[in-house]
Amino acid sequence: MKAFMDRDFLLDSSVAKELYEKYADMEKIPVLDYHCHINPREIYEDRRFKNITEVWLGGDHYKWRQMRTNGVEEKYITGDAPDREKFGKWAETLPGLIGNPLYHWSHLELKYYFGYEGNLNPDTAEEVWNLCNEKLSEDDFTVRNLIRRSNVRLICTTDDPVDSLEWHEKIKEDKSFDVQVLPAWRPDKINNIEKPEFREYIARLSEVSGVEIKDMESLEEAIENRLDHFEDHGCRVSDHALPYVMYVPAGEEETEKILEKALKGEAVSNDESLKYKTAMMLFLAGEYNKRDWVMQLHYGCKRDNNTLMYEKLGPDTGFDCILNGAPSSELADFLNALSAKDSIPKTIIYSLNPNDDQAIGSVIGCFQGGGVRSRIQQGSAWWFNDHFTGMTNQMKSLANLSVLGNFIGMLTDSRSFLSYTRHDYFRRILCALVGGWVERGEYPYDEKLLMNIIKGISYNNAVEYFGFDLEKI
Amino acid sequence: MKAFMDRDFLLDSSVAKELYEKYADMEKIPVLDYHCHINPREIYEDRRFKNITEVWLGGDHYKWRQMRTNGVEEKYITGDAPDREKFGKWAETLPGLIGNPLYHWSHLELKYYFGYEGNLNPDTAEEVWNLCNEKLSEDDFTVRNLIRRSNVRLICTTDDPVDSLEWHEKIKEDKSFDVQVLPAWRPDKINNIEKPEFREYIARLSEVSGVEIKDMESLEEAIENRLDHFEDHGCRVSDHALPYVMYVPAGEEETEKILEKALKGEAVSNDESLKYKTAMMLFLAGEYNKRDWVMQLHYGCKRDNNTLMYEKLGPDTGFDCILNGAPSSELADFLNALSAKDSIPKTIIYSLNPNDDQAIGSVIGCFQGGGVRSRIQQGSAWWFNDHFTGMTNQMKSLANLSVLGNFIGMLTDSRSFLSYTRHDYFRRILCALVGGWVERGEYPYDEKLLMNIIKGISYNNAVEYFGFDLEKI
Amino acid sequence: MKAFMDRDFLLDSSVAKELYEKYADMEKIPVLDYHCHINPREIYEDRRFKNITEVWLGGDHYKWRQMRTNGVEEKYITGDAPDREKFGKWAETLPGLIGNPLYHWSHLELKYYFGYEGNLNPDTAEEVWNLCNEKLSEDDFTVRNLIRRSNVRLICTTDDPVDSLEWHEKIKEDKSFDVQVLPAWRPDKINNIEKPEFREYIARLSEVSGVEIKDMESLEEAIENRLDHFEDHGCRVSDHALPYVMYVPAGEEETEKILEKALKGEAVSNDESLKYKTAMMLFLAGEYNKRDWVMQLHYGCKRDNNTLMYEKLGPDTGFDCILNGAPSSELADFLNALSAKDSIPKTIIYSLNPNDDQAIGSVIGCFQGGGVRSRIQQGSAWWFNDHFTGMTNQMKSLANLSVLGNFIGMLTDSRSFLSYTRHDYFRRILCALVGGWVERGEYPYDEKLLMNIIKGISYNNAVEYFGFDLEKI
Repeated sequence: MKAFMDRDFLLDSSVAKELYEKYADMEKIPVLDYHCHINPREIYEDRRFKNITEVWLGGDHYKWRQMRTNGVEEKYITGDAPDREKFGKWAETLPGLIGNPLYHWSHLELKYYFGYEGNLNPDTAEEVWNLCNEKLSEDDFTVRNLIRRSNVRLICTTDDPVDSLEWHEKIKEDKSFDVQVLPAWRPDKINNIEKPEFREYIARLSEVSGVEIKDMESLEEAIENRLDHFEDHGCRVSDHALPYVMYVPAGEEETEKILEKALKGEAVSNDESLKYKTAMMLFLAGEYNKRDWVMQLHYGCKRDNNTLMYEKLGPDTGFDCILNGAPSSELADFLNALSAKDSIPKTIIYSLNPNDDQAIGSVIGCFQGGGVRSRIQQGSAWWFNDHFTGMTNQMKSLANLSVLGNFIGMLTDSRSFLSYTRHDYFRRILCALVGGWVERGEYPYDEKLLMNIIKGISYNNAVEYFGFDLEKI
Repeated sequence: MKAFMDRDFLLDSSVAKELYEKYADMEKIPVLDYHCHINPREIYEDRRFKNITEVWLGGDHYKWRQMRTNGVEEKYITGDAPDREKFGKWAETLPGLIGNPLYHWSHLELKYYFGYEGNLNPDTAEEVWNLCNEKLSEDDFTVRNLIRRSNVRLICTTDDPVDSLEWHEKIKEDKSFDVQVLPAWRPDKINNIEKPEFREYIARLSEVSGVEIKDMESLEEAIENRLDHFEDHGCRVSDHALPYVMYVPAGEEETEKILEKALKGEAVSNDESLKYKTAMMLFLAGEYNKRDWVMQLHYGCKRDNNTLMYEKLGPDTGFDCILNGAPSSELADFLNALSAKDSIPKTIIYSLNPNDDQAIGSVIGCFQGGGVRSRIQQGSAWWFNDHFTGMTNQMKSLANLSVLGNFIGMLTDSRSFLSYTRHDYFRRILCALVGGWVERGEYPYDEKLLMNIIKGISYNNAVEYFGFDLEKI
Repeated sequence: MKAFMDRDFLLDSSVAKELYEKYADMEKIPVLDYHCHINPREIYEDRRFKNITEVWLGGDHYKWRQMRTNGVEEKYITGDAPDREKFGKWAETLPGLIGNPLYHWSHLELKYYFGYEGNLNPDTAEEVWNLCNEKLSEDDFTVRNLIRRSNVRLICTTDDPVDSLEWHEKIKEDKSFDVQVLPAWRPDKINNIEKPEFREYIARLSEVSGVEIKDMESLEEAIENRLDHFEDHGCRVSDHALPYVMYVPAGEEETEKILEKALKGEAVSNDESLKYKTAMMLFLAGEYNKRDWVMQLHYGCKRDNNTLMYEKLGPDTGFDCILNGAPSSELADFLNALSAKDSIPKTIIYSLNPNDDQAIGSVIGCFQGGGVRSRIQQGSAWWFNDHFTGMTNQMKSLANLSVLGNFIGMLTDSRSFLSYTRHDYFRRILCALVGGWVERGEYPYDEKLLMNIIKGISYNNAVEYFGFDLEKI
């Protein structure tokens, strides 16, 4: 029996261990976190945390969800119960989470950041509470120091087109912190024409861009203005949250009328919404391509399913689910429309539905080329798939269908400053997978080839792909 | 090489063996079979079987299907060939069923109930035939004794709302048999408004309930009457067979008109049928919630696909298949509609399409809480998925997305009194899965935590969840 | 660590090795390739290859696709770069293809046909180039000798109904070559009524059959004429490429009108196209059944997705993808319609979407019987699924749901004369799967039963199923 989550955690062969130690250990190979949801202001202000509940349970809807599943009352989750009691409820929930990534993430964080080697459960809760809180009061545990200790070189946050990016600017100006913190462009509110808040948002976009938006042309002008603003702040990547990648093409005139309706505050039909979004996505993708930005497409999510709780807590509080049924045909047609105009940007495709892995792997293969290694990528296993099964399956599927050696690898997608150990988790799974192939004679034990693969997927491929101002390792 | 299906069958690590021996062995930890299709009359009358063909091939459409696949003529399956010849055809079919759960179930039954250690094939058929038939003539092999020997504490059958439940009553009155045999409410015929037999069924429901059904109100009154009857007989659980979980809400007036059409014998459209079913499911779920019953939703099946054979043999004879394409969005919307009215019952969701595992795992997480551990459950791998692959994948998916420690575990879903060894099969797979995690250092080797998990999933969680009158072990 | 792709490649247990050596080694158990895309003329003319680039990269869109993915410019793929440079680009691409079947196929071919034991990468490219080209100049490396050395007994090509089959005839007459090369009937152009080339194709069919096609009756007459022609040339099998298996029944009159429109050159709607295809598929299946031919249904592919490249290179050049969303209900209804008329032929169903495995496995079980072992088969993992993961999953799914022992096994589906090692790849995976079950005590170590299973799936089942004029081994 292997010891619980020791140095060799998940490394189930000697080749896996060797690859990890030489080419994947976060101490040696730094972290490039190209997609996350952390707040740049907290980096600039170098936030401190008053206790482990604040860090762990303050904004983590993954944990909230499992606490609810364990029957914990809401007051101990998002309510006003004392922090120690909330922590106790989490400690009660954790043992039942056998096989869940939260079990591993929590213990990786306890080990890596706090040096705790045991397992958290009701019997050890008091000890862990005290240990963590003591550490959190040390200077090592400010936001910036957590990032430094995690060997992070670059972070892309997730930002709205109307954002001033002032905190990114301040971080850049502060020479005492040399980790790059770049914005990423997430224009969902421009896309969501069917939402009641669309009109108000467009008014805000008019204001911020200084362009009066009254039709597609002026809307596009306003967007270009903001794209330039993001470009000026070092942005290299966009991100879209879509129910699925739609392709319902319409003539310019029809699109114009749909926008007109929405700007007048009239309701648009589902079909109209799909047509507008198709047109907008084609426009945006073309702009990304011009700027050599990467387009990220996250799809397959149905959000805010629990109306009662949404009314109490708002979005991103643990009430989202997988939306199945995304048609691979529309994804292919959308990429083809871009390709046909020679305006297809580097693109990363993520579906929340793991059944889409093979369809995505086969679609991306139709639009490769242009001198870029894996110009169209399948993104790493995401959110509900961000675990051993999901990451292994995504990498196996990608290997079966594409060139795994070019994969740009992991990102945290997180709101937490303790989540960089998810890169470690990913790299262990990667080394186990590749090590297993070598052990079983399915790939040669060739140091040079293996080094390129592991370092590439851990770090170097992303440096090259996004064109960040970083050295390869 | 491990011996063929020995004591350690499927237990592939020492932790797996330890967990099984201590916390999962059916001799120590009893069986709670909360969903099956056995006939309570056969329990009351303590049926005897004249030979192994009667037990094995009398009503088991799983076996019939594979015999047909093996090219066996129908007369040896459901026809009038002699029992010994039918058995011979099954013995010819079995060796090709390598990897199939029927291979394991058959040999588990031969071993557990008949003490046979070999493998059944044409060369051993005669020996097995004689051995089994000799045993079946013993008193140990009556229905009640088979149930007792299987350490079963409670059985829920599957019953129509118009059923008198007389056999359940008689079993309860018979003090010589202390296994609880409770009815379960399966109102498919109330739901299936599009079927030609709907009108006749409603007439029967009127008669049995004493309520003249002429509109939604009287229909609901009749249903409540029958729900009370089931409640009086100890019912704690309902069950629905749906093509998929639909959510097509309509106004009351519209629903009323649809029912009116159907009661007049007019055809209803597919859209009307979905609207009526949505309304009826919302009503029924609310009733279950009031009574603290559990709602089981079985979906993803397309039945009676072979018209020729249906005309000869009727339903449940081996001609059903997986219906793919169930929209996760409607499942989420249905549960939300219940949740929004605060009338969501404890619910177990089973899809026959294993691709739905992750969507279900993500949907249930949106509706948890209310002080109940895993109020909304994903049911155990079912029917076409009731095998090593299916059960392992369902448990891994549930672990990845939810709190596996709260899982209510296995049920037979069977028509056979020899099928309790499927609980043993499930528990071995559970112990192998959990044992593997411990062996690989992915979960601590902590006796207390592991005991709670294995005993919980094998027995205790179901006791607590359904609120049966049973002690935890 | 196992050596890289040695004699025991993929054989991960001693039972697996034993089964492979005794019952699956291509030296002992011959190859029956019942579906491929090789050109019979090249067999008749006994083509020679001038270098390894011609063999490997001349027509293999699987490799082209991965070279594009690796950023290789088109001139080194399908363009006019020198063969040595193209080979160099492939050698650069290969190391990143860790886990990809092309990595294994390429090295299996290098080992089996050329005796090369190393791994191909930029450092070894020159050595491999020289070695292969030297061998290719030898007599052993003509098309016929490659087929002989691969121990192939029978090949089915893929042919259009208007094909004269002259090359098949010439091969048959040539007594110096005793491998059977039979045509297979692929009538996609008869089905694709919505395509612009339909009308022209029907004119050609009129001409070749000598039947003036002006309505359904004469179309069917022309088809029967060609079916007879294929029958006369030993054809035993048909093949269809469908987006999905549709079932949209229409009356005869309506079908007639749809055909009339198309023959006049008018556009047909999607609904009309589905109705025509349903009618045509029902007719064709009935004809196959009369002739005791096997019907192959390949579905789940969306073709020619990259318009720019399609215009440059045409079809089958590496721009196809998985089409998801195939409804299992229509597949079941189509087979039922045939079954109801007692005209269901032996049928093999392949989906390009691996998520369909379980639905297919459950559908085929509804239409078995008629004295044929596994009359309706699920075909081997195909194209994007033709790898360790896909083949293992397809066989596990088939084992779980059907009688794996009756499986007709592997085919190359290839355009290459070096691809017979894919049968070896498949057999290793089969032996590993079955060997694993035996090692773990899930199936008895019974020589007779195991021999039947492995030899059956490798060769004998296909001999029996198709009714070829071959001896079982």
